[in-house]
Amino acid sequence: MDNYSHELDTVFVALADPTRRAVIRQLGDGPASVGELAHAYPMALPSFMKHVRTLESCGLIHTSKSGRVRTCTLDRQRLALVDDWLAGERRHWEARTDRLEQLVTNTEETA
Amino acid sequence: MDNYSHELDTVFVALADPTRRAVIRQLGDGPASVGELAHAYPMALPSFMKHVRTLESCGLIHTSKSGRVRTCTLDRQRLALVDDWLAGERRHWEARTDRLEQLVTNTEETA
Repeated sequence: MDNYSHELDTVFVALADPTRRAVIRQLGDGPASVGELAHAYPMALPSFMKHVRTLESCGLIHTSKSGRVRTCTLDRQRLALVDDWLAGERRHWEARTDRLEQLVTNTEETA
Repeated sequence: MDNYSHELDTVFVALADPTRRAVIRQLGDGPASVGELAHAYPMALPSFMKHVRTLESCGLIHTSKSGRVRTCTLDRQRLALVDDWLAGERRHWEARTDRLEQLVTNTEETA
């Protein structure tokens, strides 16, 4: 499997969870510490950290540690992978529609 | 969890696999039977059927059976869920940028 496809897999997996999507929404307001983020969710910190690691490992967020505080930052550019995939599908559909229209035109001209 | 969020979960899970994305691409060319689709992939039919069922259960494809042939059709509208989610995040970022710009303007006026 090529790298692009693998990256898409991991980004889509990361997005397939309401807690992780909520963290992405929160980080849209700017960087936040794991502690600040975690207390919004009814789960233990280790469970929350698993979500943070899933988001980090696919590149949707970056984290950095200063002393005891780990700060999370959203990487908006990473979501462009999803945009690009959708745009690719759309281009494919449009190319097909163009071919069908051409076929109809040719048939009409022949008729 | 609300229904919209659950629907997003299932669509993102379905998209997180290269075979399922390839089937979506193929069905962008128009409906195809499971048999026609399956022979493009190096896996046994039961494994391929699992992918078909995952795509069908989240609504990305519909299937119908006529005699022994099951035909799959892409539901492009279902991908709009992903578009809408991305658009929602983007609106959220833009609203934040607007607030920041307003803050800077107010600070400059006060200074």
